[in-house]
Amino acid sequence: MIGEIPDVVVQRLPRYVRELRLLLDEGVEVVSSQELGTRLLVTPAQIRKDLNYFGRFGKQGRGYNVRHLLEDLREILGLGREWKAVLVGMGRLGRAVISYPGFAPEGFRIVGAFDVAPEMVGQKVAGIDVRHLDEMKEFVQREGVYIGIVAVPAEAAQAVIDRLVESGVRAVLNYAPMSPTVPPEARVRTIDPVQALQTMTFHLRNLQQGKGTTAKKR
Amino acid sequence: MIGEIPDVVVQRLPRYVRELRLLLDEGVEVVSSQELGTRLLVTPAQIRKDLNYFGRFGKQGRGYNVRHLLEDLREILGLGREWKAVLVGMGRLGRAVISYPGFAPEGFRIVGAFDVAPEMVGQKVAGIDVRHLDEMKEFVQREGVYIGIVAVPAEAAQAVIDRLVESGVRAVLNYAPMSPTVPPEARVRTIDPVQALQTMTFHLRNLQQGKGTTAKKR
Repeated sequence: MIGEIPDVVVQRLPRYVRELRLLLDEGVEVVSSQELGTRLLVTPAQIRKDLNYFGRFGKQGRGYNVRHLLEDLREILGLGREWKAVLVGMGRLGRAVISYPGFAPEGFRIVGAFDVAPEMVGQKVAGIDVRHLDEMKEFVQREGVYIGIVAVPAEAAQAVIDRLVESGVRAVLNYAPMSPTVPPEARVRTIDPVQALQTMTFHLRNLQQGKGTTAKKR
Repeated sequence: MIGEIPDVVVQRLPRYVRELRLLLDEGVEVVSSQELGTRLLVTPAQIRKDLNYFGRFGKQGRGYNVRHLLEDLREILGLGREWKAVLVGMGRLGRAVISYPGFAPEGFRIVGAFDVAPEMVGQKVAGIDVRHLDEMKEFVQREGVYIGIVAVPAEAAQAVIDRLVESGVRAVLNYAPMSPTVPPEARVRTIDPVQALQTMTFHLRNLQQGKGTTAKKR
């Protein structure tokens, strides 16, 4: 049923899921690709095209049933189940990540934490034992972990990511400020707060130049 | 020269900037919209359309001069200068953010930190005095700060964001796991690691179902 789906399409689906959940919370039962597009800042054609990769959702001219589309997309994305993750790097950033309250409600559970610093290894943080990085591979394989979260300094990140993929991890969430690469069997996403800031400086610059905001919000 | 530019276009430009910088580092002098599109997972038509909002870059059939396009986009986005920011929330997350090494090289400088917890106010973290939230408005206005970074718990985030915008902040980087709203004069972006993870579970689910990876990487 599902053929070759471009990664860029898959990358948009979680945004659809989030917006559909908001719609459901607002009591909306049916949504058109037009309305959904307006909320998501993409064209209705894009939405129809993206969803067509996964089969026929909704009927021509009748919009999408919000609840059904949401359930189907969650199923397609492999959500609504638990995914184990390991975290590498227990410095300031890693300790913030391990305590981040957003993962658990969405089914992402950090089950192991790793570092190389003697003063960190053996500690317990947020209920999780910090192990030495050398124990990672065996742990990942024993526990069946497919997700690795990287919170090490930029200069150490690529080597850690390589070790994660070698260990069997197939999805890497990278917090280090660098652009990592992974082999074809894996995926990587980088949390990039600088890029998020850079999408707003255009607006600030226009404000300061007294142009008001020339960018449409939606 | 610059008319109404959709926010979604502005949001893509930092990715162009990052990719152009990588190209420049690789010694590439000219790039076609085709090549740039392949690297960025967007269509060449999209790239040409996006860039056309800002004037005429490159000549038909000759590609874009990497260095000039990079410089022009950086100028358009208001990069290559210093932007001051304030940080609200000095818990675990805020202390990680204030030490994040990625901001300074890109011109983003945290000049003030705020909290309400008596044990935090008056401390110095990463060389910055932690002040009480009640001092924020006066500080933001005196220092001419337009960027606010929010690292408070989800349930407190919207109220903090409202106070930031009231104080004069016009760009908010939100780390709390919630979807904030801002008035039309401001912009907000949320750092959403869960959404990043959700873009990879499709791939993991296919691997586990023995389908290999049905998604094309590029």
